[in-house]
Formats: sequence, structure tokens, C-alpha cells
Amino acid sequence: MKLFLNQEWQAANALRFDLTNMFVDAIGTAGIKEQEVETNKKAALEAEDSLKQKRPQLAWRDLPYGQTAVVSEIVAFADKARHKFTNFVVLGIGGSALGPLAVQQALNHLYYNELPKNLRDGRPRLYVIDNADPERFAALLDLMDPAETLFNVITKSGSTSETMSQFMLVRALLKERLGDKYYEHLVATTDSKGGSLVKIARQEGYRLFYIPEGVGGRFSELCPVGLLPAAMTGIDIEELLAGAAFMDQWIESKPLAQNPAYLLALLQILAYRKGNNISVLMPYADSLKYIADWYAQLWAESLGKRNDLTGKEVCVGQTPVKALGVTDQHSQVQLYTEGPFDKVITFLRVEEFRREVKIPTDFVELTNLAFLGGHSLNELMDAEQRATAYALTKAGRLNNTIILPRVNPFTVGQLLYLFEVETAFAGELLQVDAFNQPGVEEGKNATYALLGRPGFEQKKVELTSGAQKSARYVLSV
Amino acid sequence: MKLFLNQEWQAANALRFDLTNMFVDAIGTAGIKEQEVETNKKAALEAEDSLKQKRPQLAWRDLPYGQTAVVSEIVAFADKARHKFTNFVVLGIGGSALGPLAVQQALNHLYYNELPKNLRDGRPRLYVIDNADPERFAALLDLMDPAETLFNVITKSGSTSETMSQFMLVRALLKERLGDKYYEHLVATTDSKGGSLVKIARQEGYRLFYIPEGVGGRFSELCPVGLLPAAMTGIDIEELLAGAAFMDQWIESKPLAQNPAYLLALLQILAYRKGNNISVLMPYADSLKYIADWYAQLWAESLGKRNDLTGKEVCVGQTPVKALGVTDQHSQVQLYTEGPFDKVITFLRVEEFRREVKIPTDFVELTNLAFLGGHSLNELMDAEQRATAYALTKAGRLNNTIILPRVNPFTVGQLLYLFEVETAFAGELLQVDAFNQPGVEEGKNATYALLGRPGFEQKKVELTSGAQKSARYVLSV
Repeated sequence: MKLFLNQEWQAANALRFDLTNMFVDAIGTAGIKEQEVETNKKAALEAEDSLKQKRPQLAWRDLPYGQTAVVSEIVAFADKARHKFTNFVVLGIGGSALGPLAVQQALNHLYYNELPKNLRDGRPRLYVIDNADPERFAALLDLMDPAETLFNVITKSGSTSETMSQFMLVRALLKERLGDKYYEHLVATTDSKGGSLVKIARQEGYRLFYIPEGVGGRFSELCPVGLLPAAMTGIDIEELLAGAAFMDQWIESKPLAQNPAYLLALLQILAYRKGNNISVLMPYADSLKYIADWYAQLWAESLGKRNDLTGKEVCVGQTPVKALGVTDQHSQVQLYTEGPFDKVITFLRVEEFRREVKIPTDFVELTNLAFLGGHSLNELMDAEQRATAYALTKAGRLNNTIILPRVNPFTVGQLLYLFEVETAFAGELLQVDAFNQPGVEEGKNATYALLGRPGFEQKKVELTSGAQKSARYVLSV
Repeated sequence: MKLFLNQEWQAANALRFDLTNMFVDAIGTAGIKEQEVETNKKAALEAEDSLKQKRPQLAWRDLPYGQTAVVSEIVAFADKARHKFTNFVVLGIGGSALGPLAVQQALNHLYYNELPKNLRDGRPRLYVIDNADPERFAALLDLMDPAETLFNVITKSGSTSETMSQFMLVRALLKERLGDKYYEHLVATTDSKGGSLVKIARQEGYRLFYIPEGVGGRFSELCPVGLLPAAMTGIDIEELLAGAAFMDQWIESKPLAQNPAYLLALLQILAYRKGNNISVLMPYADSLKYIADWYAQLWAESLGKRNDLTGKEVCVGQTPVKALGVTDQHSQVQLYTEGPFDKVITFLRVEEFRREVKIPTDFVELTNLAFLGGHSLNELMDAEQRATAYALTKAGRLNNTIILPRVNPFTVGQLLYLFEVETAFAGELLQVDAFNQPGVEEGKNATYALLGRPGFEQKKVELTSGAQKSARYVLSV
């Protein structure tokens, strides 16, 4: 049996949550009163009911379970492809990029792409091209031979402008370089229903993986969107899914007061309603840095809504801020400690790092250095996280800590799934649709207009008249 | 004469500012009224006066000019060292890391470290180790031979725990590997007055560069802190300083209504006072991505203050958020467009990228792809920035755009200096000390206590009793 299926091992690798410093008795007036939790219990129970009722429509909830066949396919494909290609390039943006980046940073070597091939066990380098910047695209091509590269085009709709532009570029390049065999360097991950990418992929014979219906971009890391890139670089995707399943069962089995997803969401929303419009996620580990980027999309796009479920204009949403410990103690913590009472800080603390580095005993006559000697960087990281939480608490600032016993696919799977359910639950509490993004349509249409897409001529006129107004407050030398 | 000293060239490379969408006539009720600017003119003039009076104490204001000798030294040192070492590693955190990272990303190849040596013209790779994470440190050593590496320890105080821990580790390693010659692999950048690092460096014979008195960490990029790393990777630091000088003269010569630094600061603070406690910096260029990280420290640490200049408790400060266009259109823009009216978005737009990438004409029968063909990624980036500004404006959201004709040392120098003066001016408007960071002391002391530094025994007791309380709201499976 695989180790991660062992119950004792799972218990030793379960996340833990310290929510003490969210409450009034730890931080004073800015804190939440237990009574406020009580008062909102009814709303929380309704949210729970509502989420339970919606579950059949929320296909991402079942990703930890329903993928035995596709996981086998991905593993089989990756086992073969891994050694055939030097580079694996994801062309994707938003949910198609942030998950793969977060998981790669968490679970592989921190300088993975720069390691010589033998230290990567022959696995391909991983690049995620999540922008339309011409300098970035050209720079990527400076780096690699397309003939040694497998490109994974990821877009649910099959028509995301940035991703499909890159796809068109790469396809032309591969055709030029490889002739008829170009299609062997392309893998598509997309909706199975009639998008442009699925049509092209079928016609031209690319390997195809499907994004299940009902799995939106920002909830897609645990489907082939994230699983294929992870498998390509040797990450145990079954363990990742086992972690998510473990968290799902935890969430489904506990009442509000012991439920990490529901209680975190409730405390966050209570804090938001008291004027904390900023949610900082601050991992104390370089490996978890991009978990904060992934979370930022999930939280912002799901909860930032003009209208509530009844259509009433509400303009709600907490702004996620990504920070990194200890680095941002020297950048953001001054503001967090002394600035306005407008934020909640969530720390991610790692108990056991995968490497230990001891600081040598030295400079015994210099008191501001001597005390460091004999400690490890591990101890320093741990002390700094505790010290920062302590200082924030003393300054009366809302904070809480999610503890990862270690960083492995099982704990990362838990964390991703936790945040997904927390976000969905927060959507219920705010009474908004956490699964759409109507606010980006206007910008998309304006882009189409500016690029002369047929059907958007009227929008172009509107834009051009707007541009005239903008001569008004222009400063130049 | 160097091209960047030519006046016509300078004018063609001057930043421009479009502030139209900060005002009520562009965005409606959330906008600023011209009358509000009028009303605050007196305060702005006082701020201007106050800054002028303080200028002699603000040594960072004169960095564009007073460094002829040190620039020559740095250039001479870098010219030699550049070809002797494969790797140049900055050990620094906060202001000692964010500037070097921002400038490197802006002005060198986007995959600089991964390029083969000949494509780097033999220049060393650059690493900035700005965390105490043991996995990061160990990963760095997996990558490089210390014998081929020059380490630049940067800390103003000479005793920053994270940096000095890394220094102690690196020094021991170099001694072990290189014996007596270890000191040739160490360069120190620090205060010239009695810190621990300057003592050690003098005693052991490291090459030393000084951080001028009166130049605080977050205002230090244009002194040796930033200039040495930039010179090592071949960046023209004279052009960088010329850009800063150009911006200084611009700022010093224009009245409020035409003054980019003062007007930006005033509009930002007026917006803050109307409830916009979030400032988003959103460059539309991968190269400018880390300018947003650098700005985030500058803005947060300078303005996030508990007390004003009279000692009154005010708890002010706007929270900086770093975003990236177009990437974050698929992550944050939904929230920016539809969420609360609580933020100002500042775009950085690049007019001319250093590479051009044309999308091939293809798939003419697929309307959602065909319109892309024949355009360039350059046009796509430009259209998306304009479209996003348009959509935000239509939704009534505060936004403004800083236009860089291109990204080069001259425009980056302008941008850095602009933000520094804007921040100082905002400090005057908020009536806080923009140059200290008292809020981080508590956390530092707590770290000392946890690591058992002599003199912090009492703090340790305080911390331990706090820890007992924290058993209260702990969730575990």
C-alpha cells in the first residue's frame, strides 16, 4: 500500500489551524467576539446546506475521487513523454497557469529548471507562459529548441486570446521546424464541447485531455489542467488527490466550530464586514510562495462581485494580498503592524522543512551575530513566524496560522482543496455567485474592438470617443 | 557624447502620465473633483516646502549626482570581476534585495540566468537570496560551486539577522573550499560607521562599498546597493542615474499641476482619504513585474505608520498590491471592476517593446481566432492595457497610466526616482515620518528572544505566556 494511504501517516500529515488571534480575547477591540460567531450560526448553517445542495453541480468537488481513469492516462503519458522532451511548456493564463506554477514551486527543487538534467532525473524543465508579452515569448524561444519541447495548450473555452495567440505562434514554428510531425509536440487541455481548440486538436491529431464540465478555471488545478504538468515533472499526483480527498472528508464530517473551511470563511467574512477589506496570505516558505498567487485569483475572482444572487448591486469582495515570510517582514510588516485596521493576515507555517541548514558558531564577540551561531535557518524561520504573529497580536491585528507538518503532495492537496471550499463557502455567506466572472467581459470586448474583430465596430467607436477625452490630464516633460 | 545625455533623446525617452481617469468627469462619483485639488493646494505647497527644507538631510535625493567617484570604482570593479565569476549572489533582504531584483528583471534578458554563457556575453548569473528559508539556501548551493561565485553581502546596519546568517554560512563554506583566498569571494555593501559587517570586512579584507549616510534601505537602489549588482550584469548604471537626474530636474522645475511626483502623490492621498486604502501597481510588461515589488516596500513601509509627526496615533497607510498585465486580467481584474470602490489602479504602459512577435494569419474560418492573425503580441498587450483601463473607467474606478516610451536604464531610473519622491511627498501630506520603520522592532525583539539572545530573557517569558493562550482555537483533524 502506498504510504500516503496509511491512516496514521495521514494523521501525522494533516494540516492544523490556529485561529486564536482572530478573536477579541487575543487581540482586543479589532477581534471577533464569540457571540458574533453565534449570531451568524444560522447564516453559516444555511450556507452549509446550500453548498451541500449545489455539490452535484460543482464538479470540482469530486475531482479528488472521480479521476482514476484519467490519472492512469496522465501517468502513462507522462512516463513516456518525460524522457522524450527537454522542455515542457504550458501555454495558459489565469487558472490554467497559477495552479501548475504553485504546485511546481511547492513540490520540486526551488531552482528546478536550472539544475543539470541528471539532478532532475531526466525530467523536462517546466515553463508556464502566462502573459502575451512579446519580450517574454521571444526570450523563451532564445532558450529552447522547439524540437526538444512539448507544448501544453490549456484553455477551457478553447479561445482565450493570449493563449491561442501563443498557440498559433508555436504551431507555425513547429510546422516550420518539424514538418508533418509537428503535432507530436502539442498537447491540448480543454473543454470537450465545441471550442476552437478541441476542434483543431481533433483535426490535427494532438493528444487531448479534457477539463470536466462544471470545473471553472480557478477550480481546475486538480483536474488535467494541473495534473499533467505535475506528472511531467515527477510529482505524485495520486498523493496530491489523496490530500484533497482527506480534506474533503474532514470538511464534510465536522460541524462549523471544528470545520476548517467553514470556520475560516466565516471568520474572514465577519472580519470583512467589520472593515477588513484586505486578506493577506503570507507563507513562511519559498516553496509556498505561489500558493499565495493561486489563492489571490481564487479569492478575488470568486468573491469580487457587483451583484448578489438576487441581482442587487452590492460591490463586495476582499482584496487578496500575497506576501512571503520572512522576506516581507522587511517590506510589508511595518504597514501590517502600524497601519489601518483593515486586514487579516493568514500565515502558512511549515514545521519540518525538507533541508536543514545549520548556522556556524562564529563571531562570539559580536553580540548581534553570536546568538545566531548554532541555530539553524530552520529555527530562524520558525522563530520569525512566531515573532511576527506575536507582534501583530500585540498590536491588536487579526491574524491566524495554518500549519503544514511538512510540504508534500498530500499537504498541498489539502491546502488547495481547503481554500477552494473556503472560497465557495464565503461566496454563500456573501450571497454572491462564486463561480462566474462577468466583470471581465467589458475589457475582453474592448480588446476585440481595438484589434478589429468583426462584430465589435460599435464598441470601437465608443472607445475612440473615450480616448479623445483622455487628452485632458496628461503630463509630459 | 553618450546618447543618453543628448537632450532630444532624453525628451523622446521621458515618461508621460495620463491622470484623466482619476477625476470625476471621467469616472463619475468615485472620482476626484478639481475643486478637491484646489482645496488641498495649500497643504501641497506646504509639503513641497517641507520637502525642500529636508532635502539636505535626504541623501538619497542627491544620489543621481554625487557619485562620480563611486560609479567609476564600481564600473572598474565590475569590469574585472564580471569575467572572473560564473555567479554573483546578493545576500540581502528588503531594500537590499528588491531594487537589484527589479532592475535586473527590467533591463536584462527575461531568462538571463538560464541563457548559456555566450548569450550572456560572459557576464555572471545573478541570484538574490532574500529569505532565510533553508530549502532555498540549500537549493542555491546545489546549483553552484562557491569557488566560481562572488557573494555580495548587503546590509546597512551590518547586523540584519537573515543576511548575516547567510553570510556566516557562506563564509564558512568559502573558507573550507578555498582556504586563505576565501575573502576574494566576498564583497560587503554597508554603512561606513561601526556595524558588525564593516568591522569584519575591514579585518578580513573584503572589497567594501559604502551605503551613504542618510540613505535608508528602501531608498538605496541608486547607491552601491543597486549599482554594483546592476554593473556586474552589464547594465549601464550611468544611464540609470541620468534617468533619475532627469526626473529630479523635472520634479524640481514644475508647479504642482504639472509635477508628476507631487500630483500623483496628492491624487493618491486624496483617494486614500475617500476610502481607497489599496494602491495597485499593474505594469503591462513582464520586465517591469518586480518594479511593483520594489514599489510595494517603498509605499508600505514609508506610509504605514501608527503615529503622525506630532505623536498622535493615526494608524494610516495605503496597502500596495502588485499586479501584472495582462496576466492578472485573468485573476484580479474581476475584483477591480466589480468589487468595492476601495482602490486606485496605476498602470505602467510600455510603448515600444524590445522584441516584436507577429501572430501568423491562420484559422480564418474560426472567428474567435482569425482576428488575432496578422497582429503582433505587441499590439495585443497594448490593446489589452487600453481595454482594461477603459473597462475600469466605465465601471467608475480610479485609475491612471504611467507611460514608458521604452524600457531602458534611463526610463527605469526616472521611474524609481519618481516613486521615491512621490512617496516622500505622500508622507508629508499624511504628516508621517516616511523614513523610519518603528513597527518592526517588536517582531525583531521577539525573534531574538525565541533564539535566546542574551538580554531578551524577559521578552521570552512574555512570549511563552502568550503561547499558552494560543491553545484555545486550534483545529486539528
